[in-house]
Amino acid sequence: MDSQAEMQTTPSCQSDRVTTSVYPAGALNMLSREEVARLSNASEEMGEVLRRCALAVLNSGEQGDDAEAMLAKYHDFQIQVHQVNRGMRIDLQNAPACAFVDGKMIHGIRELLSAVVRDIVYFETEIHPNPYFDLSDSEGVTNAVFEIVRNARVVDAQREPNLVVCWGGHSISGEEYDYTKEVGYQLGLRGRDICTGCGPGAMKGPMKGATIAHAKQRTLPGHYVGVSEPGIIAAESPNPIVNELIILPDIEKRLEAFVRIGHGIVVFPGGVGTAEEILFILGVMLNPANREMPLPLIFTGPASAGDYFEEIDRFIGLTLGEEARELYSIIIDDPVAVAREMTAGIERVRDFRVQVNDAFYFNWLLKIDPDFQRPFEPTHQAMSELRISRDLPRHELAANLRRAFSGIVAGNVKPNGVRAIREHGPFQIQGEPEIMEALDQLLTRFVAQHRMKLPGGEVYEPCYRIV
Amino acid sequence: MDSQAEMQTTPSCQSDRVTTSVYPAGALNMLSREEVARLSNASEEMGEVLRRCALAVLNSGEQGDDAEAMLAKYHDFQIQVHQVNRGMRIDLQNAPACAFVDGKMIHGIRELLSAVVRDIVYFETEIHPNPYFDLSDSEGVTNAVFEIVRNARVVDAQREPNLVVCWGGHSISGEEYDYTKEVGYQLGLRGRDICTGCGPGAMKGPMKGATIAHAKQRTLPGHYVGVSEPGIIAAESPNPIVNELIILPDIEKRLEAFVRIGHGIVVFPGGVGTAEEILFILGVMLNPANREMPLPLIFTGPASAGDYFEEIDRFIGLTLGEEARELYSIIIDDPVAVAREMTAGIERVRDFRVQVNDAFYFNWLLKIDPDFQRPFEPTHQAMSELRISRDLPRHELAANLRRAFSGIVAGNVKPNGVRAIREHGPFQIQGEPEIMEALDQLLTRFVAQHRMKLPGGEVYEPCYRIV
Amino acid sequence: MDSQAEMQTTPSCQSDRVTTSVYPAGALNMLSREEVARLSNASEEMGEVLRRCALAVLNSGEQGDDAEAMLAKYHDFQIQVHQVNRGMRIDLQNAPACAFVDGKMIHGIRELLSAVVRDIVYFETEIHPNPYFDLSDSEGVTNAVFEIVRNARVVDAQREPNLVVCWGGHSISGEEYDYTKEVGYQLGLRGRDICTGCGPGAMKGPMKGATIAHAKQRTLPGHYVGVSEPGIIAAESPNPIVNELIILPDIEKRLEAFVRIGHGIVVFPGGVGTAEEILFILGVMLNPANREMPLPLIFTGPASAGDYFEEIDRFIGLTLGEEARELYSIIIDDPVAVAREMTAGIERVRDFRVQVNDAFYFNWLLKIDPDFQRPFEPTHQAMSELRISRDLPRHELAANLRRAFSGIVAGNVKPNGVRAIREHGPFQIQGEPEIMEALDQLLTRFVAQHRMKLPGGEVYEPCYRIV
Amino acid sequence: MDSQAEMQTTPSCQSDRVTTSVYPAGALNMLSREEVARLSNASEEMGEVLRRCALAVLNSGEQGDDAEAMLAKYHDFQIQVHQVNRGMRIDLQNAPACAFVDGKMIHGIRELLSAVVRDIVYFETEIHPNPYFDLSDSEGVTNAVFEIVRNARVVDAQREPNLVVCWGGHSISGEEYDYTKEVGYQLGLRGRDICTGCGPGAMKGPMKGATIAHAKQRTLPGHYVGVSEPGIIAAESPNPIVNELIILPDIEKRLEAFVRIGHGIVVFPGGVGTAEEILFILGVMLNPANREMPLPLIFTGPASAGDYFEEIDRFIGLTLGEEARELYSIIIDDPVAVAREMTAGIERVRDFRVQVNDAFYFNWLLKIDPDFQRPFEPTHQAMSELRISRDLPRHELAANLRRAFSGIVAGNVKPNGVRAIREHGPFQIQGEPEIMEALDQLLTRFVAQHRMKLPGGEVYEPCYRIV
Repeated sequence: MDSQAEMQTTPSCQSDRVTTSVYPAGALNMLSREEVARLSNASEEMGEVLRRCALAVLNSGEQGDDAEAMLAKYHDFQIQVHQVNRGMRIDLQNAPACAFVDGKMIHGIRELLSAVVRDIVYFETEIHPNPYFDLSDSEGVTNAVFEIVRNARVVDAQREPNLVVCWGGHSISGEEYDYTKEVGYQLGLRGRDICTGCGPGAMKGPMKGATIAHAKQRTLPGHYVGVSEPGIIAAESPNPIVNELIILPDIEKRLEAFVRIGHGIVVFPGGVGTAEEILFILGVMLNPANREMPLPLIFTGPASAGDYFEEIDRFIGLTLGEEARELYSIIIDDPVAVAREMTAGIERVRDFRVQVNDAFYFNWLLKIDPDFQRPFEPTHQAMSELRISRDLPRHELAANLRRAFSGIVAGNVKPNGVRAIREHGPFQIQGEPEIMEALDQLLTRFVAQHRMKLPGGEVYEPCYRIV
Repeated sequence: MDSQAEMQTTPSCQSDRVTTSVYPAGALNMLSREEVARLSNASEEMGEVLRRCALAVLNSGEQGDDAEAMLAKYHDFQIQVHQVNRGMRIDLQNAPACAFVDGKMIHGIRELLSAVVRDIVYFETEIHPNPYFDLSDSEGVTNAVFEIVRNARVVDAQREPNLVVCWGGHSISGEEYDYTKEVGYQLGLRGRDICTGCGPGAMKGPMKGATIAHAKQRTLPGHYVGVSEPGIIAAESPNPIVNELIILPDIEKRLEAFVRIGHGIVVFPGGVGTAEEILFILGVMLNPANREMPLPLIFTGPASAGDYFEEIDRFIGLTLGEEARELYSIIIDDPVAVAREMTAGIERVRDFRVQVNDAFYFNWLLKIDPDFQRPFEPTHQAMSELRISRDLPRHELAANLRRAFSGIVAGNVKPNGVRAIREHGPFQIQGEPEIMEALDQLLTRFVAQHRMKLPGGEVYEPCYRIV
Repeated sequence: MDSQAEMQTTPSCQSDRVTTSVYPAGALNMLSREEVARLSNASEEMGEVLRRCALAVLNSGEQGDDAEAMLAKYHDFQIQVHQVNRGMRIDLQNAPACAFVDGKMIHGIRELLSAVVRDIVYFETEIHPNPYFDLSDSEGVTNAVFEIVRNARVVDAQREPNLVVCWGGHSISGEEYDYTKEVGYQLGLRGRDICTGCGPGAMKGPMKGATIAHAKQRTLPGHYVGVSEPGIIAAESPNPIVNELIILPDIEKRLEAFVRIGHGIVVFPGGVGTAEEILFILGVMLNPANREMPLPLIFTGPASAGDYFEEIDRFIGLTLGEEARELYSIIIDDPVAVAREMTAGIERVRDFRVQVNDAFYFNWLLKIDPDFQRPFEPTHQAMSELRISRDLPRHELAANLRRAFSGIVAGNVKPNGVRAIREHGPFQIQGEPEIMEALDQLLTRFVAQHRMKLPGGEVYEPCYRIV
Repeated sequence: MDSQAEMQTTPSCQSDRVTTSVYPAGALNMLSREEVARLSNASEEMGEVLRRCALAVLNSGEQGDDAEAMLAKYHDFQIQVHQVNRGMRIDLQNAPACAFVDGKMIHGIRELLSAVVRDIVYFETEIHPNPYFDLSDSEGVTNAVFEIVRNARVVDAQREPNLVVCWGGHSISGEEYDYTKEVGYQLGLRGRDICTGCGPGAMKGPMKGATIAHAKQRTLPGHYVGVSEPGIIAAESPNPIVNELIILPDIEKRLEAFVRIGHGIVVFPGGVGTAEEILFILGVMLNPANREMPLPLIFTGPASAGDYFEEIDRFIGLTLGEEARELYSIIIDDPVAVAREMTAGIERVRDFRVQVNDAFYFNWLLKIDPDFQRPFEPTHQAMSELRISRDLPRHELAANLRRAFSGIVAGNVKPNGVRAIREHGPFQIQGEPEIMEALDQLLTRFVAQHRMKLPGGEVYEPCYRIV
């Protein structure tokens, strides 16, 4: 579907590994000796996480969500952070050759690698131990998210609101992929920047389309922000267009980062990950404290995706009610309309921020219930104990459905989740029968449409069972 | 082959025409009242040429080389240049809607449109009547080419040599197209900029690949230079990546511009236009005055293009001899090798310029024989009178073969040429039998490989006859 | 009064001459071989003028208006422009050492020197022989002025109107000098740029004050535009703050350049040169065609200058009438009021330009009568034949008074004028008795106040006689 | 001596106070709500210090070192930092009108004011309570200094070594002031930036000279770094050229900042403050760990300052011995020689940093003994207990002499010190007779030369007694 793929599989990429040292770029280029020492220690502690994420970034542009295969292929890859007089040096052993040109690391990959070291280790050394960031407290979590985002220099006090978050599946059809490009193109023509989960599919298409539009409008380079977390990034290498990467420590902070730095959200067709994202934003927006808060939220896809969104819409109506359905609009097969509605919506966001004197670069006023902030560890037990029923307050039901989808994502692609499923069999999910039935139907459809895993692999073996 | 195509065929592009006024960008934004008056007058004189070229640029990104169809579709399109107090205003009637976003012209297209007005009219008002540019004199022609190029602000005294000219067909296979992208990508990774004839196919692929590489190396925006002439541009809208456009007054000055501003040349598979370009550069380089002049010249294509280049190579050996064959290297199916050899070659160009104290931005020392500078008008008579024989001095034979190919290009796609063929039947080409046979074989092969016209149209009807 | 003076008289400045070659900066760095050849030839023809102006620029920052002394001191200084492959090279022999730091020319002086070559020679090679610039025609002169100004890259289509022309004497008291600095400072605090005749005194003070204000407002570097002509610049080295220098071919085009690129004018106390400037602008503005044209014009000085402006005001009233007196305002001892009134006035200029759709960067609509454009050669005969009488139409009287002052300036400081006076004695000026009396009184006062020549020299010997 | 002074005393400056709110610039423009809250609280705690420093900055450019007078004049000035949705707002009551132009704060002053809030409060909220900065430990202090400097964005990883620290008196003669300008001018011509204590006199002259040189070399704006501490800044408003201001929490960290970010040091004539600085750098450099460390250190002044440096030199020889005398060179009346020697010295610093792989922007390897880092509180008791004798290890003697001079500075100008002297009479200083005698002579001379306080005030009343 996209002929850039083979670009990455040139001979140079398949050749030998490279062992070398690089000096970091960006925020890491001016550290105190103390900080370098801490980073160096922490990088040892965070060893395996750092190794996996670094490997993913060095494979930036390679397709596939089979983290295990990549890890197996580069089983002898090593990364170490060393203190040198001048600052810090990243030593790589047996790194994928495709990250280099004639022995020199591609500059963008060096930036992404630096971002990985920065974020993985920064959280460990600066945020976690710092008493100012009380992660058991809602405001503390928000401050931590802000600190990570600011440290990544992704936010800029001078910039007008224009960041469109695009959600959607990593495994989508060629037609859907082209549609995401076209939406990105139309957004880009209107001056919008793009923020996605930074993997392939719907996370890449909008950035690619926007790049071409930005080229035509002579506004290159735009901002192509990738927001990830260690479990995801190891499974989905950032696509090569991402020029600003942030890695949040867990999925909940990643979701919070999306909605605090974005000024509008477009949702493309996707699988359980996308469903998780939808549940998150609806659950948050249903909070009465956010009633006045403008947030353009558009579900869109090509004509063939009409059924898909109808079903999602129905599921939302069933579980979260009419009020939730009013929070978004569905636009089928009309990228120009999407771009125009988004542009108008962001204008309202801008007016609102001015009116309430909130920052353009971070949505401080959005109220996020701790239920959506607290990390959910999808063990077999936790998954089976999720209460899913319309007897619950609406936002609590949304939170639990979000967790259910989150668990399935983990079981599908994240290293820990995959291992747990392999050892203990599928998760059990139970709840109110009518919802369970709708959920089952939704998930079955995702499987049938190959939305659970990238095609080309074996037949998808569900990691859950609806009880 | 390239999913970006459909981007251009969105509903907005097929909708109504737009009638509006725009103010020019770039070099035209500060003119004296006198100059604006002259421009305004000249633009009336140049009316039809200006109209066609402007239309092509407004369709930038639309595929197809059927100029007639485009002109028919937008038969009511009008462009006028008016003097207003502040400077100059371009009035457009019934312009293609796809050049606009929500009623505002896309910035890059505004730049290209300004370039068209600038170059088409500039030659008429400033160069042609200026006694300093004696166009009957070799040095005068070179000065005129320089003046046009400088006025377009394409050259920059500060830039290091890094401009790779890519030649090749506008109508190539998907595999070949992907190969040109990959070569552009590998060149871009090594910091090279791209200059092409600015149409589709091999004129677009390298720019697209380089764009992605520049994005990865964080050097966006690169320089994507399109070099055209009125007859060509009307037939081949500039691709949307071109961010610097120069329109030379005729094909000979266009070829001269290529070789004076470029620092190396890559030739991809193509048809008669590409053959014309090959004959031009070989004819020029065979001039003894250029013996010491370094100029990396690489013929390359995917594995499937091996035969193609073998035949070209044989044709060159037959007509221009072994000496000509030593001026280029052929690299099959190895983009990395192409990029490395080009990079090394440009290094030699740089050293040479430093040594002889020549400018980096313009190859003043390259000697171009007037035979390659004098405009060739491909009438039926002129075509039939071309002397093609190895009895001629080598460079003269090269010049005449160049003219033969040039005539066929005109007969294939340029408005005047197409009309002449329609009225008087195919050109007659005659000469030494052995060469005629080889030529016939080459052309037949171009036809068989659909290199003469974009596929999708009717069967190709040759515009020439080998006698 | 100003301790920067001695900076220029450091040992390094008094040491030996420097013989070296430099490559030009700015507009001259990308020329065709043809152009370089023309420049090289023309620079030989313009030899002495070029030599004097170059010498003045190399002495930039040195005080004094004794051109003869400077020329004598550096009698063996030589400048030649040579064509080299890469472009052009300026060869200097026995150049003043103070233009160099450790053997390398100071960058700003290299720019000024390039500007001298550019303008002196440009007029000879490009404007004078070009039929488009009919210098016998009012519009042709204006086009030539524009061409010179644009070629110097002093105007910028993007810039808002903010250029304040400051006129006033080169030889003023310390108190007056400090006052000009303070006015420049207050203008600079309000974002204004400064344009002057680029010599010492009132031509330097406002630039110096504005520089400090721009530093405080963090808008460094501002634009400090010097507008000169060959006769003046040889007498008054540009002050070292000037970072944009234009040399017009004669005094009349210089005056036209001032009023077309400036957006407002401040007049400080001065001598005959300043009087010439005042007569010029009043004569122009009295033209009925300019009645609606806004142009803030402020006469200002410290308290001690009150008498001075009273007398000027009376002289204007006497000669040009009440209407002329309404064209300016007089503000004594209040720099803040000057800056505020100028800022408000420029706002009106901006509104007017928008309304009539005229450029911000060049006042195309200002009508200048040919009487003010035609070069006046102040021979003894021409001076004695000037008709000065209220019987003349007002603007003609203004034009003739302008010429009278212009002649005295030449007799005071310009090389040709000084020579003529030395040979033939003082100019004779005659006319209507009442005006002659007022004129005599004005001039006598200028002498008494040392406004005719820099102090420190011998007693001033008038170069004129009122008959 | 310097005619810029009166610029500050325009009517606008003497007019009424201004009460307004400003939003901070620079590093403070993107804070979390938590941080703003902390800042807001801390700014209340730091109230009086903040108020004094802010007042000094708002008076930037006003001369005088009489902090008490300024505080008295603006006794009703108030500053408060408030949290607003968007970030933070600084509320000012009765602020000096000269910081504003037509009601809008001068941009550079807004930056300096933001720097004051940033540094005063940053130390309180981020450094002091942070366990990572152990201020009882030498390395912890150095890390804190780095953190403050980095947070002020004064260091830049990309910049080549070129920062020249200039020390010298705030109260110097006109001749000496002009000399410091000339040295700054010669340094600026050679591309150097300037760092000083940011008050008047020798702290302003070099910046002013460098500004003019940077203008001539077209490298505006240069970096004019002011390094201060709360006690000093309240006494000496930063001069208006400073465009980067850092306020360290105490005099010892200020001295450490100077020597870690500077690449060479020039010492002009001065009083006790300058003597303190000399003792500090010599004491540090005498540490055997720094033996290989290159650090150009030049004492210079006009011819009239020859005696002064002879006496300083003798005092150093007497107290710290020949080894100390080898650490500096003395250059009298030759600014060009100073600039050349400094430039060569910085070249050696650069080579050394490359060789040992140390950062260009911070001299991590310089060993500073805790004796020079520990804050010295100059109480009457502490002053009288200082041991001053050649029996002590050399560096300890240097440290104690440094403290003695530091105490006298405090007694002369710092608010606390002045109050202590007023209450308890002069400090008593005692020690080895020969040193005491030399010290007495040195101090007496400082008094005689008006180096203790700005002239114009009453007769200087010594705040010390040599026992």
